[in-house]
Amino acid sequence: MIVVMKTDATAADIQKVVVKVESLGLKAHTIVGAERTVIAVVGDNRKVYKESLEIHPGVAEVMPILAPYKIASREVKKDPTVIQVRDLVIGGGTIGVIAGPCSVESEEQIVACARAVKAAGATALRGGAFKPRTSPYSFQGLKKEGLEMMATARAETGLVIVTEVVAAEDLPLVTKYADVLQVGARNMQNYRLLEAVGDTRTPVLLKRGPSATIEELLLAAEYILNGGNSQVMLCERGIRTFETHTRFTLPLATVAYLQAKTHLPVVVDPSHGTGHTYLVPSMSAASVAAGADGLILEVHPDPQNAKSDGYQSMTFKEFADTMATCRKIAEALGRKM
Amino acid sequence: MIVVMKTDATAADIQKVVVKVESLGLKAHTIVGAERTVIAVVGDNRKVYKESLEIHPGVAEVMPILAPYKIASREVKKDPTVIQVRDLVIGGGTIGVIAGPCSVESEEQIVACARAVKAAGATALRGGAFKPRTSPYSFQGLKKEGLEMMATARAETGLVIVTEVVAAEDLPLVTKYADVLQVGARNMQNYRLLEAVGDTRTPVLLKRGPSATIEELLLAAEYILNGGNSQVMLCERGIRTFETHTRFTLPLATVAYLQAKTHLPVVVDPSHGTGHTYLVPSMSAASVAAGADGLILEVHPDPQNAKSDGYQSMTFKEFADTMATCRKIAEALGRKM
Amino acid sequence: MIVVMKTDATAADIQKVVVKVESLGLKAHTIVGAERTVIAVVGDNRKVYKESLEIHPGVAEVMPILAPYKIASREVKKDPTVIQVRDLVIGGGTIGVIAGPCSVESEEQIVACARAVKAAGATALRGGAFKPRTSPYSFQGLKKEGLEMMATARAETGLVIVTEVVAAEDLPLVTKYADVLQVGARNMQNYRLLEAVGDTRTPVLLKRGPSATIEELLLAAEYILNGGNSQVMLCERGIRTFETHTRFTLPLATVAYLQAKTHLPVVVDPSHGTGHTYLVPSMSAASVAAGADGLILEVHPDPQNAKSDGYQSMTFKEFADTMATCRKIAEALGRKM
Amino acid sequence: MIVVMKTDATAADIQKVVVKVESLGLKAHTIVGAERTVIAVVGDNRKVYKESLEIHPGVAEVMPILAPYKIASREVKKDPTVIQVRDLVIGGGTIGVIAGPCSVESEEQIVACARAVKAAGATALRGGAFKPRTSPYSFQGLKKEGLEMMATARAETGLVIVTEVVAAEDLPLVTKYADVLQVGARNMQNYRLLEAVGDTRTPVLLKRGPSATIEELLLAAEYILNGGNSQVMLCERGIRTFETHTRFTLPLATVAYLQAKTHLPVVVDPSHGTGHTYLVPSMSAASVAAGADGLILEVHPDPQNAKSDGYQSMTFKEFADTMATCRKIAEALGRKM
Repeated sequence: MIVVMKTDATAADIQKVVVKVESLGLKAHTIVGAERTVIAVVGDNRKVYKESLEIHPGVAEVMPILAPYKIASREVKKDPTVIQVRDLVIGGGTIGVIAGPCSVESEEQIVACARAVKAAGATALRGGAFKPRTSPYSFQGLKKEGLEMMATARAETGLVIVTEVVAAEDLPLVTKYADVLQVGARNMQNYRLLEAVGDTRTPVLLKRGPSATIEELLLAAEYILNGGNSQVMLCERGIRTFETHTRFTLPLATVAYLQAKTHLPVVVDPSHGTGHTYLVPSMSAASVAAGADGLILEVHPDPQNAKSDGYQSMTFKEFADTMATCRKIAEALGRKM
Repeated sequence: MIVVMKTDATAADIQKVVVKVESLGLKAHTIVGAERTVIAVVGDNRKVYKESLEIHPGVAEVMPILAPYKIASREVKKDPTVIQVRDLVIGGGTIGVIAGPCSVESEEQIVACARAVKAAGATALRGGAFKPRTSPYSFQGLKKEGLEMMATARAETGLVIVTEVVAAEDLPLVTKYADVLQVGARNMQNYRLLEAVGDTRTPVLLKRGPSATIEELLLAAEYILNGGNSQVMLCERGIRTFETHTRFTLPLATVAYLQAKTHLPVVVDPSHGTGHTYLVPSMSAASVAAGADGLILEVHPDPQNAKSDGYQSMTFKEFADTMATCRKIAEALGRKM
Repeated sequence: MIVVMKTDATAADIQKVVVKVESLGLKAHTIVGAERTVIAVVGDNRKVYKESLEIHPGVAEVMPILAPYKIASREVKKDPTVIQVRDLVIGGGTIGVIAGPCSVESEEQIVACARAVKAAGATALRGGAFKPRTSPYSFQGLKKEGLEMMATARAETGLVIVTEVVAAEDLPLVTKYADVLQVGARNMQNYRLLEAVGDTRTPVLLKRGPSATIEELLLAAEYILNGGNSQVMLCERGIRTFETHTRFTLPLATVAYLQAKTHLPVVVDPSHGTGHTYLVPSMSAASVAAGADGLILEVHPDPQNAKSDGYQSMTFKEFADTMATCRKIAEALGRKM
Repeated sequence: MIVVMKTDATAADIQKVVVKVESLGLKAHTIVGAERTVIAVVGDNRKVYKESLEIHPGVAEVMPILAPYKIASREVKKDPTVIQVRDLVIGGGTIGVIAGPCSVESEEQIVACARAVKAAGATALRGGAFKPRTSPYSFQGLKKEGLEMMATARAETGLVIVTEVVAAEDLPLVTKYADVLQVGARNMQNYRLLEAVGDTRTPVLLKRGPSATIEELLLAAEYILNGGNSQVMLCERGIRTFETHTRFTLPLATVAYLQAKTHLPVVVDPSHGTGHTYLVPSMSAASVAAGADGLILEVHPDPQNAKSDGYQSMTFKEFADTMATCRKIAEALGRKM
C-alpha cells in the first residue's frame, strides 16, 4: 500500500501515518519526493482497508498494491483449475458448452431441449426452476417440480444439470438435483448465499453482476473458495453501460484479463450479454476466439412462446449452426470443444 | 405497447403479430405509415413481456407504454406516502434524518453516537449489525449482540432504530429490534428477501442498487408493496459510472424524477453517494435543496478508527454543522427538518 | 413517432398535440387505450425533433420510430459498401488490416514498420502525424514532416496510408499525403471537421467516440455522406464504462449490430479498445470471429521506447503471430484476409 | 510515480526499470516488500507517460502520484480565481447566472430573453449562433447574423454575452461579439480549438465532455491556460451513464471535488444536465447548495416552439421563480447571487 501525502502535509501529519501503520503491525517506509512525500507500507496489508489511512490529515490518496483476494489469485496457484463433472469439462484447453432454456416450463420442453443440445454437442443442460425476476408479476419458475423435470432430462440424456439457487435456505433441495449450482448476477453479492454455496462441495457457476468490478467478482469467488469449495467457474454475462442497443454490454477482454489474474476458468454468456438472438451466434464465435473456457447459451424449442427470455433464445437449428461455427474456430486455435 | 415493424415486413408478418396480440387477450390497432407499419397494442399489457412480440419476424422494435409497476405508481395513488415512526417523519414536507455509524462496534460507541446525533437533530439512528462486505476478510458485524446494543441506544435516547437485514432467515431476529428495516444496495434484487420483508409490517428503507434503473428500483419496491407492506422509503445512494474520483456518482435528479413517478418518499445517502467525508456536507445540502424527503448519514465518534466506512463518516461536530446548514436550506424552502 | 399522453391528459391536451402535428405537415392518428391515449404521427418526421412534442402539456413521452439517419441506413442501401484503395479492401467478405505505430517518429521507424506489417499481411499503414493528446505536455506529432515520412514508407512498400486529420484547416495538406483520412474518437462530433471531410473524395475511417451511442456515430457518418463522400468506414474502438482494468471497454456486439443497421463497413481497433498489448491478440481474434470487416492495430519496432501508446503496441513478432491466428479464424469462417 | 513489480519479477527486471527511470533524469527508490518490490520514482515526472514504464517485463502496474496538470492545480495557486466581466462575477463567494435560449432565433426573441433574464437577476446572456448539432438535418444556427442579434441584446440590456465557438477559424469573428467564449462539451478535446482559445484574452466557459474524467477536463483547461489565457471557468453539464430517465446524469459532487483540486470557478448547467424542464428548478437549487460558483440555464420565450432544446428550456416565469428560490438558498449559505 502506498500512502501519498498532500504537498502541504506537515511532518506531524507524516509521523501520525507512520505511527498508525506500525500500530497495524506493518512497516512504513518514507520517501521524500520533489513535491510530495509518499509512505510505502510493507507487509501483508490485505485486511487493512485503505480508507483507514486515507482519512488521516495530510493524506492525499492511498493506493493498494496487493490484490485483496488470495485463494482465487493466479499468483497463489499457477496452473489453471479445470472443472470436470462427467462429460462437462471446462478449462485446460477444453471448451464446455452449457445450453438450455431460461426457465424449465414442462417435462416435454426440457427433455426436448436436452436431446437437441446434446445432439449439437453440449455436455450440460441449463434450466431455471427458481427464477429471480425483475417484476413480481413475471413467471417465477416451477421450483421443485422444475428440478424434477431437470432430473428426468438428465436421466434421458446423461447431460450435466446446471441450475440456479437464489437463497441459502433452498440449498438442501437444489443440491439434491443440481450437478452445478448457478449463482446469478443479481446475487453475486448476496454473501449469505455465497457462504452457503461455499459450504457445499457442488461446483459453482458464479455470474458477474452487471456493475461488478473484476475485483468484486474475484472477492465473491473468494467467499466460496474460502468455505472450502474449490470448484468455481466465473461467468461474464455483460455489464451495464450507457449503451442501449444491446441489453448489456459484453466485454470480452474480461476473458484474457481474468485468465491472467486467476486460475479459475471463465465461461461467457452471449445470450444475456447481448439480449438479442440475432447477435448471439457472432458473439459466441467471438467468445471462443477470445479464449473462453466455456459458453452458456439459451436455447428453446419455440422461442416465440417461451415464458421468459425468448427474445434472446436460439432455436435448435440456430444453436446447432452456432456450435458448428464455434467448433471450427476452436479447432483453428488448437482447442477442444 | 407499440410494435414497430421493419420497412420490409410483409403483410403475413403483420398478420402474425396481430394474431399473437389477440391471443393474449389484447386489441391490435394497425397504423400504416409512410415507411413502416406500427401496431398499437391496447389493453392492460403489463404482464406481457415486450420481447414475446419482439421475437416475431418482421418486428423491428417493441416499445412499452405502461410502466410495469402499479402499486408504487403515482398514477395509482396521487398523494405522497408519509412514513412516521414515533419522532421520525419522512415525506409530506418534513425531512427526516437518520444518522449513525456504519457498523455497531460497541455499546459505548453506539450510545455515544445516538446521543450526539439526537442532540444535532436526527430522529433515527442507523447502525449495522449484519454487514454485507465485499471481502470475506472484512469485519462482518456483531450480529445479535449488535442489535442488542442498538436497543440499548434506543432505550437511552428514544431514537428510531434503522438496521439492515441481509437474509430472509434473519427476519424473526432483526424485526424484534428494528423500527425500520434497511434493504441494502447489494440486495435490491434479492427477491426472496424482498418478499420476506413485504410479509412484515415493519417500515422498509430500500436502497437503490448501483446499477439499477429507476424502473428496477420501483419494481423492487413493488415486491414489498405487493406483500402488503405499504411503508416503503426509497433511497438513492449513488450509481456506478466511469467516474473514479467519487466512490459512486450521486445523481440528485433522481429525487424529483422519483417524486413524479411514485408516491413513496425519497431519502438520499450522501455518505455512500460520495465515499469521502469532505464531500458529504455539500452533498447533504444539495440533497435537501433537490427536495429529498430524508437523509441518511454516517457519523462516528472516531472515524479514523472505525471498523468500516471511516473514510466517509463524519465526526459529531461535522454532523452538527451539516445539520445546521441543511436546516437553513429547508427553512428557506419552507420545509420542516 | 408515437406520442404517449399522460393518464390524466385532457381532451384539450390531446387536441393541441394533434394541431401541432398537423402544423408540421404530418398526420396524427389517435388511439384511445385502456389507461392512456397515444397519438401515432405518420409521415417523414426525421427533421422533427421529438422534444418539440414532448414539451406539450399532457404528454408523457415521445418515442421516435424512424432512425434519424438516412444515407447511412441499411434500409436505404441494402448491399454492403466495400471500400477499396489499391490493395486495401474492407467489406464484402474481405477483412482489411491497417497496422503501424501510434505516432510517426522518424523515417527509419515508419519504414521499418511498413515493411514488417506488409510482410505479415497488412495492406495499409497507420501512423499519426497530427496527434490529439490529452495533455498539452505530451508529444504532439511531427506534422508535415511526419506526413512526408509516411509518403516515403508508401513509396517503399506500396501500402495504403491512413492518417488522422484533426482540423478542417489541415485538410489541404493532409489530403496531399493520405489515402484514407482518419477522424479520431475525440473529433467524432467535431461537425466542422466532418463537413470538411465530407467535401473531399478521400475515404474516411470514422472512429466512434468513447461515449457516443450508435445513433450518434451513424449521424456523424451522415454528416460526411451528406457532403457527397460515400466512402466511410466506421471504427469501434471501445467505450467508456465503469471498468478500469482495461483502458476502454470493447463491445464487439457493435459489429453485428452495425452491420444490421448500416451498409458501411465496420473496423475494430483492439489496441485502443483494450489499452494493454497482452490483451490485443485475443481481442483481434475475437473481432474477426465477431464479423469485423477490418482491423486497425498499433505496431512499433520498439514499444518500450515509443513516443506514444507503447503500452498497447505490438512488436513485429506479436503482430505477425496475431495475423496468423486471425487468418486461421477468417478461413474457418470462409472469409478472406 | 510508483512502479509495482509482479511477484515473480526477477532482479534483472527490476534493474531494467531502475535504469530506464534514471535515463529519464529521475531517481529510483527500490522498496522490497513482503510479496512484491515497488520502485518509487522521484522527481518531476509529469511528462513521463506512465505506460512507458508499464510496458517493461516484470512490471505489474504503474501508479502516477503527481496530477498531470499544473497551472490549473490548486496546489500551484491557492486562492480561487474570480472571473469578472462587467456585472458578471463568478467565483469568490458570488454566484453568477448566465441565462438565455439554446439558439439565437431572431432579434425579437433574443432581446425579449435578455430583458426577461436580466429582470430576474441574470448578469449574462447565453445564446448559440454556431450550433454543433448531432444530426446534419437539425437547425445549425444563424451564425454571423446571430452574433449581431446578441450584440443588439447587449446594447439594449448591458448583459455580458456568452456564446459558443466551434472552430479555431471562427475565432476572429466570434471574439468580435463575445464577452465570454463557450467551448462546448463535444469540443472539450478539440485541442486545436483549445489552443486557439488559449491565444485570445477572452474569458472562456469550458464544458466538461459527457465522458471526460475530471483529469481530462483539467488537462483541457490546461491547454487554454498554457496559451496564456488565465480566465477559464469550468462547467459541469452532466455525464453519460446507464441512466436513461434523464438526458445526462448530473453529478454535483464534481463541484466540491473540483474546488479542492483547482482554483478555477465551477459553473453548473442543470438544463443539459437533466434534459427536462421540470427537473431544472430543483437541480438549480441543488447546484447552489452544492457550492456552484455559477449557473448556466436555458430560457426561451416560447419553449414549445423553440428551434432547439425546447424540452429543457424554462419560460420566463419558471426562470424567475427558480432565481428566487436559488437566491434564498444562497442567502441562507451566506453567499451573494
